[in-house]
Amino acid sequence: MEFKKIKIAVAGLGRIGKIHLDNLLQNDNVEVVAVSDPLEISRTKAMEKGIHITFVSYYEMLEATNIDAIVICSPTDTHADYVEYAAKKGLHIFCEKPLDLTLQRVKEVLHIVKMQDVKLMLGFNRRFDKEFKKVKELIQKNAIGDIHLVKTTSRDPGAPPIDYIKRSGGLFLDMAIHDFDMARFIVGSEVREVYATGAAMTNPEIGKVGDIDTAITILTFYNGVKAVIDNSREASYGYDQRLEVFGSKGMIQANNNFQDAHQLFDANGTHSSLPLHFFLERYEKAYKNEMLNFIECMASGMEMPVTGVDGLKSLQIGLAAKKSISEGRPVAIGEIDE
Amino acid sequence: MEFKKIKIAVAGLGRIGKIHLDNLLQNDNVEVVAVSDPLEISRTKAMEKGIHITFVSYYEMLEATNIDAIVICSPTDTHADYVEYAAKKGLHIFCEKPLDLTLQRVKEVLHIVKMQDVKLMLGFNRRFDKEFKKVKELIQKNAIGDIHLVKTTSRDPGAPPIDYIKRSGGLFLDMAIHDFDMARFIVGSEVREVYATGAAMTNPEIGKVGDIDTAITILTFYNGVKAVIDNSREASYGYDQRLEVFGSKGMIQANNNFQDAHQLFDANGTHSSLPLHFFLERYEKAYKNEMLNFIECMASGMEMPVTGVDGLKSLQIGLAAKKSISEGRPVAIGEIDE
Amino acid sequence: MEFKKIKIAVAGLGRIGKIHLDNLLQNDNVEVVAVSDPLEISRTKAMEKGIHITFVSYYEMLEATNIDAIVICSPTDTHADYVEYAAKKGLHIFCEKPLDLTLQRVKEVLHIVKMQDVKLMLGFNRRFDKEFKKVKELIQKNAIGDIHLVKTTSRDPGAPPIDYIKRSGGLFLDMAIHDFDMARFIVGSEVREVYATGAAMTNPEIGKVGDIDTAITILTFYNGVKAVIDNSREASYGYDQRLEVFGSKGMIQANNNFQDAHQLFDANGTHSSLPLHFFLERYEKAYKNEMLNFIECMASGMEMPVTGVDGLKSLQIGLAAKKSISEGRPVAIGEIDE
Amino acid sequence: MEFKKIKIAVAGLGRIGKIHLDNLLQNDNVEVVAVSDPLEISRTKAMEKGIHITFVSYYEMLEATNIDAIVICSPTDTHADYVEYAAKKGLHIFCEKPLDLTLQRVKEVLHIVKMQDVKLMLGFNRRFDKEFKKVKELIQKNAIGDIHLVKTTSRDPGAPPIDYIKRSGGLFLDMAIHDFDMARFIVGSEVREVYATGAAMTNPEIGKVGDIDTAITILTFYNGVKAVIDNSREASYGYDQRLEVFGSKGMIQANNNFQDAHQLFDANGTHSSLPLHFFLERYEKAYKNEMLNFIECMASGMEMPVTGVDGLKSLQIGLAAKKSISEGRPVAIGEIDE
Repeated sequence: MEFKKIKIAVAGLGRIGKIHLDNLLQNDNVEVVAVSDPLEISRTKAMEKGIHITFVSYYEMLEATNIDAIVICSPTDTHADYVEYAAKKGLHIFCEKPLDLTLQRVKEVLHIVKMQDVKLMLGFNRRFDKEFKKVKELIQKNAIGDIHLVKTTSRDPGAPPIDYIKRSGGLFLDMAIHDFDMARFIVGSEVREVYATGAAMTNPEIGKVGDIDTAITILTFYNGVKAVIDNSREASYGYDQRLEVFGSKGMIQANNNFQDAHQLFDANGTHSSLPLHFFLERYEKAYKNEMLNFIECMASGMEMPVTGVDGLKSLQIGLAAKKSISEGRPVAIGEIDE
Repeated sequence: MEFKKIKIAVAGLGRIGKIHLDNLLQNDNVEVVAVSDPLEISRTKAMEKGIHITFVSYYEMLEATNIDAIVICSPTDTHADYVEYAAKKGLHIFCEKPLDLTLQRVKEVLHIVKMQDVKLMLGFNRRFDKEFKKVKELIQKNAIGDIHLVKTTSRDPGAPPIDYIKRSGGLFLDMAIHDFDMARFIVGSEVREVYATGAAMTNPEIGKVGDIDTAITILTFYNGVKAVIDNSREASYGYDQRLEVFGSKGMIQANNNFQDAHQLFDANGTHSSLPLHFFLERYEKAYKNEMLNFIECMASGMEMPVTGVDGLKSLQIGLAAKKSISEGRPVAIGEIDE
Repeated sequence: MEFKKIKIAVAGLGRIGKIHLDNLLQNDNVEVVAVSDPLEISRTKAMEKGIHITFVSYYEMLEATNIDAIVICSPTDTHADYVEYAAKKGLHIFCEKPLDLTLQRVKEVLHIVKMQDVKLMLGFNRRFDKEFKKVKELIQKNAIGDIHLVKTTSRDPGAPPIDYIKRSGGLFLDMAIHDFDMARFIVGSEVREVYATGAAMTNPEIGKVGDIDTAITILTFYNGVKAVIDNSREASYGYDQRLEVFGSKGMIQANNNFQDAHQLFDANGTHSSLPLHFFLERYEKAYKNEMLNFIECMASGMEMPVTGVDGLKSLQIGLAAKKSISEGRPVAIGEIDE
Repeated sequence: MEFKKIKIAVAGLGRIGKIHLDNLLQNDNVEVVAVSDPLEISRTKAMEKGIHITFVSYYEMLEATNIDAIVICSPTDTHADYVEYAAKKGLHIFCEKPLDLTLQRVKEVLHIVKMQDVKLMLGFNRRFDKEFKKVKELIQKNAIGDIHLVKTTSRDPGAPPIDYIKRSGGLFLDMAIHDFDMARFIVGSEVREVYATGAAMTNPEIGKVGDIDTAITILTFYNGVKAVIDNSREASYGYDQRLEVFGSKGMIQANNNFQDAHQLFDANGTHSSLPLHFFLERYEKAYKNEMLNFIECMASGMEMPVTGVDGLKSLQIGLAAKKSISEGRPVAIGEIDE
């Protein structure tokens, strides 16, 4: 069999970067040509995996190597610049979300990507989780008729450091944004209005930097469907990721995933395992599927399953949620995107 | 053993009245002296059960019999008058909710009940369901620490007739009011603000009479806790009654109840039973416990577990929800109860 | 409506007798004419429920009252004589299992019942449990094709007193006999061979009186189906009653029933309720259904759903199991019933 | 970091061989030096994964390469010879089960392995499954007290080809042997007696070649514990792998694993996914853990978690089960291993 492997470089080898790198290395249709990371330890680890060309600088890597595509896993504040640079070099791009925290910069970058005619996939990993994919499939098969209500629960096992929260845009932009994307993915329509409420209940420090740790958000879509999202930064029992879709003919639930399926019965009750601890465990296979999708779309020329526009829309919802909570009223998306 | 049975009459032998009557008949500490109902067939059925004194008129029954307590299961628009009359005769009263659809009349009646120093229990049957009681107990044992979020889901298998909806006060007053009471019961604080949204999604006729069939309500309590309630008039899969309480140390779920616990595995998947069809099946034991509580509180002189004030508070929340939906903004309880 | 109530007397008001009495009292088509019990306290309790005619002696009751049917819940060693006497008086009979611990006496009594042309129903209550009925229904609808294997698990929360064990015939005759009947009910064929093994593992006293507390029994039916039954006298977590049927097209499980459906998630794991504690809780509704069936079969003239022959067959299996365990080999039913 | 990778070769690149190869390639502490397989397509696939040295012949590979260990995944009838050859070359060995179908040859090979002082790990993959590991851990923590009964259910989604069955030793040696090992693993004692029964129920062809497709086996251990195992070659709903351990203080169940955790509720019932289809899906992570254990034991010098003796013991049980079924009686292990 004669075939040409897709040549890819990876920028940023933090938690997510390492996962994407390992998944790329297992793909027989891909050649990982180079990686870049400012930390020596990360570059050394990559060399042990057989990547012989490593860079400190992203830009030098793009200049010095001959690649087809770039996988960007560097810090959020580099995303827009890196994507812009890669697009201008004609590379296909996978970039972790978000592209940027401002609508204007996101729009600028998406314009450049469009002009350069390269493919851009954004890392909304949950769309590739088997639970949520199954829900989407069942809806497409009309298993529950018309959608009336979407509910997602998303709880982290613990809050990120306060420093991260200061830079991340807060709960709505670094965490609930996944739920906003999921709701859009499930409903297949765009959001018209957002109402959000919440508080800092687990840690007063979070409140001091102007963020919340517990939130409820109601999305109203143009097609009339409503979605309710509840988020918490701190679930004592681990990562909690659930989706429920209620329709005219039935209901589908994507239940949380657990460490194992055992049950222990003793004189005190029935006991079973905790949920998978956090996103690395829960979405291990989703990350693998996500990268497979990126590669297949490049190989086939098909459209990417998550685009820059998906990132833009979720950002708008997040900004509307922030405005809603500060003004204590429902906010139309149109107010954000004037 | 020498003891005096409590003498009780039952007013109204519709669906709920028959249940309460049967539960009273099984109680060895109770003597059901008489029943009243305008329908002959209902009175005949009662006679077959051994009740020899029956009346067409509630008022005649109260005049003609010597009883300790009255159980009122007649139509909603009779409740306030019947309770007032019974209170003035010095009877203890069990009355199905709601007392009335107007705050003013409810307050009047509660004032009379207080003045007459009789006991009044209101029929919020769900508080006596084993699932919800278990959640309450676990919270009282501090199993989940401080409450951050309460979620209830309440879906009926089908909407009531349009005529009923016209008179009932609509979804918030005839259906969601149970969830409002449940949220208060669980949180143990009073509601400060209500935000509600919804639509008529299952049946346009419901919209034509000014009601909705699908709703989301967010309650904010004085202690900072939030509750989210979702309701639907029409779940194709049957009655859906769930509660989730998320706290600083854990989460409790009261799951829906099913017809049986079988599982069938075949080439198409894994299949199990539908939920119990509706409230008569789901709350069969709750009704029994409720009536037991009423009888025990009379016998012991203890305070009733659900009082007229509970009815008043839930009515306020329901009225605030209606105002919120019509004005598209959060409504403070203070606005309702000026 | 003009109709004639069925006149019934109840013999024996122990644990089971009280349950049957209460269920009969709730049935509008039945008149409980009298009860008999040697204990005064039991008779007094019955009078408080409105039964005005009570007897110390079973035989006097049958002589003195005019009844259609008798419900026998007295100790096992009275069953055969009481059934014989009632049959000779032309009464229909409900009798708790077993009729007797010897094949010969059972056969004698069944012969008399047949000659007198009265109906006899035996109290294999599990056939009326909603879980097991559902399994039977699904099999009848061919949901799993041909049956290949039946598995039942039956564990009590604690062993009965040693004195009871001495008289009861032991684990196979007082406990596993329910599973033997269940296997026959499900398979719809008769047992050809029995292999049993077991030991006294929870309490050496049980071993000293020649019984076991932990057993595995394999039944081979004439139609080739196999059933495996595991029993224990002492499950620390409560009553465990499960059934699994594996067939050519699928599998059905009747799962154990729990006190409630809550789930508590905390830092230590996921926790839920214990099973219902014992047979009174688990089979509360089964007892009600059982009595309803008895009454309906009398009213309609249909055949009883559990007959004396069912008791005979299960006794044979139990005796074969005892022989198998003492001889360490499979035993044919033919060896028992020579 | 300076470290020496373990040099490994893989013999046989069928279904299991490919899995082990992929797992070895992901391990940064291992260098896969060479592979052998008679099929060119298998060798080409390996080259695409970056293995540049491939052989048709196992023996040539062992002569021509400098390796520390061999992973043997070739057909069963080569196992004994391959292990013997590798042992004599001083290599550590991972070999898929069984070593051989005769006790004598297994003993010979184990003797050679012992004399050569190399490590041998046998591929009982289920010991590395998270469900069964959890059960073992809980038992070791005394969560259920003394074990009274072990139950395993093991059903394949479909029978292997008749040709395979002819050579494999039949159901007890190619399939139930995993359950025999699991029971030994859980109980921590050796089997004293075996009783087995079964039939060819799904396919008469299986009966014609002298095998069965449905079996029940009871194991009695020296410590008094009993285990019951039920097997079927053909479960219409997919792979079914369950374990239940009942003890003096509680019960643990290792439940089957499903394709996903969704639930669909519609007017017909509640529906969820099928089990994972077969062993490749179910034991994907178990195979990964198994290979990790092999590598870690070589690196650390610790004893292998599954040894040749484990294979020998399970083979004895399998042979006893065959003898039991043909003679219709319990068979002592001592009769097999005279």
